[in-house]
Amino acid sequence: MKEGVVENPDSILVEKPAFYSHVLDLNGFLSPDHDNSALLILNQKINIGEVFSKLWGNYNVHICADGGANRLYEYFADDAKRAKFVPDYIVGDLDSVRHEVLTFYLENGVSVIGQSSQYSTDFTKSLRLISLHFYHSEFLKMLKTGNFDQNYGIDDCDGLEQLYKAERSSWVTRDIDLLVLNAIDGRFDQTVHSITQLYTTSRTDVYYRLCYLTSTDLIMLIPTGGALITYDKAFKTHCIRNCGLLPLGGPTVINSTRGLKWDVTDWHTSIMEGKVSSSNRFVGEDCCFFDVKDPLVLSIELTLDRLSDFI
Amino acid sequence: MKEGVVENPDSILVEKPAFYSHVLDLNGFLSPDHDNSALLILNQKINIGEVFSKLWGNYNVHICADGGANRLYEYFADDAKRAKFVPDYIVGDLDSVRHEVLTFYLENGVSVIGQSSQYSTDFTKSLRLISLHFYHSEFLKMLKTGNFDQNYGIDDCDGLEQLYKAERSSWVTRDIDLLVLNAIDGRFDQTVHSITQLYTTSRTDVYYRLCYLTSTDLIMLIPTGGALITYDKAFKTHCIRNCGLLPLGGPTVINSTRGLKWDVTDWHTSIMEGKVSSSNRFVGEDCCFFDVKDPLVLSIELTLDRLSDFI
Repeated sequence: MKEGVVENPDSILVEKPAFYSHVLDLNGFLSPDHDNSALLILNQKINIGEVFSKLWGNYNVHICADGGANRLYEYFADDAKRAKFVPDYIVGDLDSVRHEVLTFYLENGVSVIGQSSQYSTDFTKSLRLISLHFYHSEFLKMLKTGNFDQNYGIDDCDGLEQLYKAERSSWVTRDIDLLVLNAIDGRFDQTVHSITQLYTTSRTDVYYRLCYLTSTDLIMLIPTGGALITYDKAFKTHCIRNCGLLPLGGPTVINSTRGLKWDVTDWHTSIMEGKVSSSNRFVGEDCCFFDVKDPLVLSIELTLDRLSDFI
Repeated sequence: MKEGVVENPDSILVEKPAFYSHVLDLNGFLSPDHDNSALLILNQKINIGEVFSKLWGNYNVHICADGGANRLYEYFADDAKRAKFVPDYIVGDLDSVRHEVLTFYLENGVSVIGQSSQYSTDFTKSLRLISLHFYHSEFLKMLKTGNFDQNYGIDDCDGLEQLYKAERSSWVTRDIDLLVLNAIDGRFDQTVHSITQLYTTSRTDVYYRLCYLTSTDLIMLIPTGGALITYDKAFKTHCIRNCGLLPLGGPTVINSTRGLKWDVTDWHTSIMEGKVSSSNRFVGEDCCFFDVKDPLVLSIELTLDRLSDFI
C-alpha cells in the first residue's frame, strides 16, 4: 500500500467508526464517574500546579509509591492542608520515604505496606497493590484486621506479587482508570521504564486504562484493533494542543488516523529512521480515531491552567 | 547464544579492548580541549543550575534555537550578566524569540538567521548551522559581509539546508563535540524527536559527538562496532550514579557490556516486552565498554552540583 498524508482543516467532523476495540474519553478519564479509579504518585516533584487538588478529588483510591509520599507531603505548606489529602496507601521498599512523613501518614490512617523485593520497581508494586485493592477477595479484610508492624500479614519481600499471582487468573475485572503522576521527566531511565509499563500492563492487566500526566502532556498507549479518543468540544478548544504518535516499542505502521491535522494512512514510523509524527494535533471536533499495526504511544499536550474548568 | 547477566563488585578494573569504533571521555566531553565544540540551547527553561556558566565557558561556539534565546536571556538577572554570555547564533523560524530578546542580542553582535521552513525543526536547522560554521568554505565570510536585514544572503526559507546539501559531500571533517541543553523533559513528542535526532545524526553526520544534558542525566547514542566510555576516577566517584541502556530505536541485542554493576552478554532488550536495563550503574574504575547489535541510547545519571569541580 502507498503511504498517505492528508492535511486537514483546523476543525473537522469525524464519524465514529462502526468497530473499535478501545475507547477513551479524555475529560471523562480525568474525572471518572465511577469508583474504579486510582491516582498513583511516583517519586518526583509534583509539578502540575493547582489542578492537583481537583484531580485528587476526582479519583477514588490514592497511592504513593515510596518517596512519592514525600512529594505529596511537600506539596502542602502545613499539616492542616496535608490532612485533607491523605492517601489510602504508601507502598514500596520504603527506602526513600522520610521518617517524619511516614509518621504523619501512619497517624492519619494510611496503610503503609513494605515490599523489599529488588526484582520489581515501586511502580510495579503499586500496580499489584491497586489490582489487589479492587479485585482480591480478602485483601481489604487483611488490611482491616492487620497492622503496620506486622505488614498486615503480607510477606514483606514480595507478598503483593504472591497474592496477585495466586488469584489473578480467577478475577472477573472491570476497567480501572489509573492516572499516574511523575512517571515521566525524572531520571531518563525511569522515564523509559514508565514507557515499558504502558506496553507490559496492556498485556498482563488489560483492565487498566493507564495514563501519565506531566506538566505538559497526557501520555497513553494506543492499542491495536482500533482506538477511539473522544472529548468535549470545549475541552478540546481550551485544553488540547499538540500531539505525537510515538513508536517507542519499535518501528511499526500506522494503518490510519482520522481527526488529526495531518492524518496518515499506511504510514511507516520509526525512531531509528527519524520518521515520527510529532507536533501533530487533534482537529476532530469531538473525537479522533487510530488504527495501528502495533501498540504505540500517544502524547497529547494539555494546557493545565485551564484543565480545572473541564474536569 | 545463551543470555547472561553477571553482578559485579562496586569497583572493577576493566581492560580496554583492542578494538572499538567509538570512544567518548565523559569529563573530557564536558570540557573539550579543542575548538571543534559547540553548545546548543533549545527552547525549555535552563534547569542545570550554576554549572551552566562553567559549561558555557568550556565550549567554543554557542547557538540558541529560536526561543532558546529567551531561555538564555531569562537565565540571567540583568543585562550586565547577559552581556558576558552572548551566543554566536540565534537560528530558527524566529516565531518564539521575543522582540526585546532579539533586540538585545542583535545589539550585542549575534548573527540571527531566520529559516522559515516548516519541513525541519529548529533543532535540525541548528545542526545544519553548526556544520556550516565549522566546514562550509564561505559561510563565515557570508556572515561577516552580510547583515541581519538581508539574512546574510541566506535564503530565509531553507538556505542553511541548501548550503549544507551543496557542499556536504566534499567536506573533510573532524569530530565536533556538541552538547545540547533542553532536548529532553519538555513536551513529550519533542523529547522523542530529540531521541530520533541521536539516531539520524549518527548516520547523516557522523562527525557529531552529540550528547544531551538534563537536570539529571547525560544522554547519548551507543553506536555499533564497540563503544568505550572513559572517565576520571574522581569524576566517577562524585558525579556518576545510575545508568540505563535504552533500546528506543526498537528491540535489539546487547552483545556484551564490561564495567556495569550488572554486565550482560547476548541480552535481548525490548521496551515492548518490558526488558530494559535501567537502574544499572558504572563500576568500571575508569571505563566501561559496550558492544551492541543496533545503536541504543545510554543515559548516565550525573550529580550536577559536583560537576563544576571536574570539568
